[in-house]
Order: sequence, then structure tokens, then C-alpha cells
Amino acid sequence: MTGPDVSLLVCGTVLTMDDEQTLIDSGAVAVAGNTIHEIGSRDELVAKYSKSRILELGRGLVMPGLVNVHTHAPMSLLRGLADDLPLMTWLQDHIFPVESRLSGELVYQSALLSAMEMIKGGTTSFCDMYLFAKDVARAAETSGMRAWVGEVLYDFPSPNYGELGQGFVYIDEMFAQYENHPLVTVTVDPHAVYTCSPDLLVRLKEKAVGRGSRYVIHLSETRGEVAAALEQFGKTPVQHLEDLGLLDSSVLAAHCVEVSGDEIALLAERGVKIAHCPESNMKLASGVAPIIAMASALLDIGLGTDGAASNNDVDMFTEMDMAAKLQKVHSLDPTALPALDVLQMATNGGARVLGAEGMIGSLEVGKRADMIVLDLDQPHLTPMYNVPSHLVYAARGGDVVHSVIDGRVVMEDRHLVSLDEGAVLAHCRELASELTGRAC
Amino acid sequence: MTGPDVSLLVCGTVLTMDDEQTLIDSGAVAVAGNTIHEIGSRDELVAKYSKSRILELGRGLVMPGLVNVHTHAPMSLLRGLADDLPLMTWLQDHIFPVESRLSGELVYQSALLSAMEMIKGGTTSFCDMYLFAKDVARAAETSGMRAWVGEVLYDFPSPNYGELGQGFVYIDEMFAQYENHPLVTVTVDPHAVYTCSPDLLVRLKEKAVGRGSRYVIHLSETRGEVAAALEQFGKTPVQHLEDLGLLDSSVLAAHCVEVSGDEIALLAERGVKIAHCPESNMKLASGVAPIIAMASALLDIGLGTDGAASNNDVDMFTEMDMAAKLQKVHSLDPTALPALDVLQMATNGGARVLGAEGMIGSLEVGKRADMIVLDLDQPHLTPMYNVPSHLVYAARGGDVVHSVIDGRVVMEDRHLVSLDEGAVLAHCRELASELTGRAC
Repeated sequence: MTGPDVSLLVCGTVLTMDDEQTLIDSGAVAVAGNTIHEIGSRDELVAKYSKSRILELGRGLVMPGLVNVHTHAPMSLLRGLADDLPLMTWLQDHIFPVESRLSGELVYQSALLSAMEMIKGGTTSFCDMYLFAKDVARAAETSGMRAWVGEVLYDFPSPNYGELGQGFVYIDEMFAQYENHPLVTVTVDPHAVYTCSPDLLVRLKEKAVGRGSRYVIHLSETRGEVAAALEQFGKTPVQHLEDLGLLDSSVLAAHCVEVSGDEIALLAERGVKIAHCPESNMKLASGVAPIIAMASALLDIGLGTDGAASNNDVDMFTEMDMAAKLQKVHSLDPTALPALDVLQMATNGGARVLGAEGMIGSLEVGKRADMIVLDLDQPHLTPMYNVPSHLVYAARGGDVVHSVIDGRVVMEDRHLVSLDEGAVLAHCRELASELTGRAC
Repeated sequence: MTGPDVSLLVCGTVLTMDDEQTLIDSGAVAVAGNTIHEIGSRDELVAKYSKSRILELGRGLVMPGLVNVHTHAPMSLLRGLADDLPLMTWLQDHIFPVESRLSGELVYQSALLSAMEMIKGGTTSFCDMYLFAKDVARAAETSGMRAWVGEVLYDFPSPNYGELGQGFVYIDEMFAQYENHPLVTVTVDPHAVYTCSPDLLVRLKEKAVGRGSRYVIHLSETRGEVAAALEQFGKTPVQHLEDLGLLDSSVLAAHCVEVSGDEIALLAERGVKIAHCPESNMKLASGVAPIIAMASALLDIGLGTDGAASNNDVDMFTEMDMAAKLQKVHSLDPTALPALDVLQMATNGGARVLGAEGMIGSLEVGKRADMIVLDLDQPHLTPMYNVPSHLVYAARGGDVVHSVIDGRVVMEDRHLVSLDEGAVLAHCRELASELTGRAC
């Protein structure tokens, strides 16, 4: 544990999010390569690693980077294109027609746009399901973000790979390309039970098992989805997956709004992971996911923003805020889902959902150096009695000043180190105008 | 309409929020004294008023300052002191004991803190109910904010004025002090039907009528409040006020979560104004106010953050976001409360609630020059298809760069012109530590 390997010290009040909820006043996190090498007193570590670069802030809070477990990053280009509409009108009249005209370059640029927003909002990892997933992965690499990326598959031809058989080829290419990559992990992503035949669901499961990857699927998002499954299969979406033998601890199920108590018990028994997306569920009027019951059943729950077109941002701070408040008002119980619980969902809970609990989600020696620094010296964060309360109920993405991912400084003083923000914004405005025929 | 009186031009895309929802690309608002003198094309107005100071931004959006119709500004000092607790535990074990030790100086400093947060979040007007209201009004003056301010009265002795009789003296002093004041308007504020005797409610109404002021009261905030009124008076809080002859168009009723369809019709018939506080109602688990029914009944509705201890911020942008999403998920209707409707609540709706629709709430010639400039050149606001959608679902208080109130620039490039932000923050940390015995 001596000096030469430590290149970076991130200093401030350190909220580790470890099991003991250790909080260190005037602390520091020492980074060697892409790994957390030591955590301790600022003055001691500054003396010990005197040649290291120091990243700090007057009243900075150092904490784990946030983990967004369900995104469709390229939908940033469709944000605000159409809102306040019935789900099927929104999808069929506005979203799908535009998506049919997507290209790899459009996806790359809009995923970059989303990555910029995520970094500037304190997110360091995201799990993405979309078309042209190689281009999403490429944007993650360019931006320096950690990402779990999957190409969405369904029964009908894709604007990306065409016929279904080519989809499997595309996935294999992705697995080959990102084998042992430091930032990008490939997932297998059937869209949902209403868009994937039982055969496709099973074949993709075999692929996921073969690759040891997460199996990411939208599950029981709406009453309509459950009703349709009951009509088509005579069973709910959860029961349908169970009867196909697909539920296990590699499944990452997004939404799970319409699940019964028995289904929650089954999901828990199988070790299924949950992506909770309250803002999207609210804006699309899907309903309120039974998160309190899920947490009681000890399910692993992470938070996701869903796509920017149904949120309409990818700010995990507001996601935490809404998650906590929605459960309280829905249950008429102000003690429901306290701040620390929801903060855990956005950090180490998200890490468990991605099977990355040994790697990210808390600041502990040996984990990857993914962390953010917030500026607490602001009116809305003064005075400070309780850190988790402020993070969930008062802080916003814009309070994040520095970001470190995999040991690399990706944002300093809100400046994105390796991206030309103005150029990406200008390019995305042009692409959006071309795509939609509207001035942007 | 010639040049000499125009001292300031605020330039950008101008969202007027007038009845026609006029949006001017590359526009400008010309300010003479405290009044909007002309609105038009940027280039024309810059040529016409060539000696004016120009306030603008690369991709700036100029819009009316937001109107927060229900606040307890000094509660900024109690933000995060205690959260996630049952309402009565929170109030009786945490909030009331601290409030009993308040002083005018504490209230002044914490109201300044709140004013800083409000200005930095795009709010230019607020309506406040609290103790030591003269000190709240003084903070509004210092900060340059427009404010409606009332001293809260109830049956028991006050930490401010002592016995009730002195409360009436205090109110009269406030009315005298702020007669014809350009920024501060005094209101009459009975706390609620469960803390004010019928006699007090009636006497305060006479005071409000005599002064031509708003009568601000918490009304039907929780099921518990309604149950208590039924037990004590044999009628609901709304019916209780009606039978006392107190409901009319000067009443500003905060919350109205638990009101029936008949009560909504009655409130509409009487012209009562509504302060909708969704984040507080969610966090305290009070319930979901029937805003869609209220809007259908043509009630005037404004948005309020309530105090920072039950929100926990005073950001009207997140308030708009939650207001829209909460109604959608509660009604399971994604078309409920569209973005433009909620934006109107936060601007001209709020103005009507305060009886100030001729003065603020939209950018129109002859109205007071209260406006903000947002920076649209950011990832989470790119591309831009629809301005109200972005303002409600994606923008945040931190996107506000300039603020003008009553013709005066109070914030430029996020720098507060007439306040020493660092000094107020430091002072508030000290005061909070003394008040609570906790490090801040």
C-alpha cells in the first residue's frame, strides 16, 4: 500500500455507501489505475500520495457514481417530440415512425447526447436496451461511461439488423467485440412477452446462459400487457416466463408494475432482478410498481430512468426523489421507502441488479473507481443535517461537479473532458431536424 | 414608445404565456422602470433602444418568472432535519420544538436562504405564511423578490407575538409598513380550521375584508383534518368555512387534498383560489389533490412548494414535473394535466390566485417586468421540439441563468446581484447548528 501507483485523490466528505454507511468528514479516495486503492483521511492520504493529482471542491461530497439500470439512451433525440398522449398513439403515431428511419450514426450521436446528460447528472453506469446497440456501446466508450448494452430483439424485422436470424449474428458480433472490455458488457434483450414468441424468448435465454450475460426484458409494465397475455396465453407475463423456464437470477425485468403478491414471491424465489422506473410509469400512466412489497420480499431493485422520451430526462436524482414520494403518497404512509433505501437502489442496489456488486455501487478498496463529487455549498443544500435526505429530496443532477469512471476523470468542473459538448449538441439539433422535419 | 425610458432589453426566444401562447424566436422584452414597455423582434428593439443594457444568452429562453403560491420560506433552516416520519411525530417531536426557539433574526436569515434558492430556481414571486412575517417581508425586500406575506395566527400563544390580541396589532403594523409597497403585499393568514376557533376565523376575515387582502388558510390537507372537523363540528372543513360565511374570492386555500365533488363545485361557485402542493402532499403522504376535477370546475389553481422541510426544495420546475406526473399515474390517464396546463398554473394561474393577474404571470406590455432567462444549450434540453414540454418534464431550477424582478436584475449569470451568497450560507449553517445542536 505505498505511493507510486496512486495517480488520483478524490477529496471531500466521503459517503462510501458500504454496509456500515461509513461517512468520512474531510476524507479522500485514492485511485490506482481503474481501482480504489485506499480510503481515509484527506490530510493523511495527501501526505502519503504527495505526487497524485487532487480532485476536490470547497464543500464537496464524494460518493459512488449512480447506476441507471434501465435506459434507451438514443431516445434523447425524441424527447418532447410528443407528450401527454395515450401510450399506443404515442408509440404508433410518433415514436415508431421515427424509429423506423434510424441509422447507426443517428443512434451513436443521440446516445452520446444521453451519455453527456448522464455524466452531467452524476450517473456513471447505465444498462441500455435499444436498436443499433453497437453504436450505443461505441458512444459509451467515447464518453468513458460504464455500460451494459443489449440489442433489442422481437419477432418482426428490425430497422437495424433486418430479419431475426441476423439479429443473432449481430449479438454474437457484439459479444466478440466486447469480450473482457473494461467498460462495456453485452446483454441479451428480448423486448417483451407481447413482442417475442415463446420460441424467441427461449432461444435468447439459451444465448444468455451460454454467454453468462444478463437477460433484460420489459415485464408487466401495464394492465394492458397483462390483459393481452391472459388473452393470448391464458396466463400473466410472469407466469408465462416461469412456465417457459426462463425466470432465474440472470433476468433483469424492467417495470414490473402489474405483479401480484404471489408473483413477487415467485420473482424473489427465482432471484429475478428489478429495474424500477417510477417517472416513466407516472408519465405514461402505467401505474405504481409495488416496490415496498418487492423490497420486503428481498428482491434486488435498481432505479432506471427509461428513455428520455417518456421521462423526459435521465436525471437519477429526480428519479430517486419521485421514487420515494410516489410510494409514500400511494401507500398514504410517510415512512414508506425512506431516503437511504432509495439511495441504495440508485447505487449498490443497481450494482446487484447488474451482477456487478463486487465492482461498483459503493466506494470500497478493490472496487472500480467510479465516483462523483457534488457541490454542497448551495442554498438548496444548506444547512446539511442528513446526507441521504439531501441527496434524495433536494439535490439535482446539476449539483454534480466532477465525475470519475474507471479511474478516469470524465468531468471536471462540469466540463466534459473527452467530448466536445457544443459540437454534439449542434449535430444532434441538425439530426433531429432532418429526422422529424421540425425545427429544433 | 420612444427610447429614453427603456433601460433594459432581455433578449432570447420569448415565451410570453399570453392568451395566444405567443412564442417569439429571436425576440426581446423592453423594460422601462419596473414595467414591460414593448415586446418584439430582438434586432428591431436593439436598434430602437440602442442605449439600453442588454441581458441575453446564446440559446436563452425568456419567460415569465415563476409564481410560488404557498411557502413557509424560513423552513429552509429545517430542511432534512427529520424525514420519512409520521406527520404528527415529525411536527411534534421535531418541527414544533425547534420553531418554539425561533427569533426574528433566525427567520430573516432563513427566509433570505430560501429567497436565494427561489431566485436561483426561477421563482420571482412567492406567497408566504409563517411566524415573524415582518422578517420574511424584510428578506423579500433585501433579495428583491416580489412577495405576499402573512403572519400565521392560531388560538394558542405564538413564539412571535405572544397572546392573540398582540397578533392583530402585529398584522396592523405590517399593513401600515407595507402600504403601496412595490414588492411586498400583506395577507391575513389563519393557520387552519383545526387550530383556529370559529371566532378567530371570523375576526380575521373581517380584517382581510377591511384591508382588501388575501385570506390564506390551509384547508382539507389530510384525511385526519377532515375526520377531526367532522368530529368537532359535525361538518367538513370546507362546509365549516362555508357555514361561517367565509368562502369567497379572497380566500387562498392551500392543499385541498380531501375535497369532494360537491365541495369542489362550492369552492368554484365562491371563487376560492387553490394552492396545489403536490410534492409536499406526496412526501407527507397526505394524498392526491383532485386537480383535474378542480380544473374542470374552472377553479383558479396555482402551484406551491410548501416549506422546504416537507418537499425538500423550493424548485418550481420539479414541482411542475411532479404535478403533471402525479395526476397521470393517479388517474391512469397519460393525457391528464398536459405540460402547458401545469406551466400555466406556475405562471398566470399563480398570478390569478394572488389577485395579481393584471401585474404578473405573463410577459405583456404594461405588466411588471418579472422574467427569467433559461439556458437551453444543454444536453437535457436538446433537441427542442416543444417549449412547455421541456420546461415541465426536463428543465430544472439550475437552468435559470438570469432573473429580473420589478425591472431590476436580481441574478446575472447565476450570480445574485444584491446578496452575498457565501455569507448567508455560512451564517445559516451557524444558526442551524445553534438551533438544533447538530453540525451542519
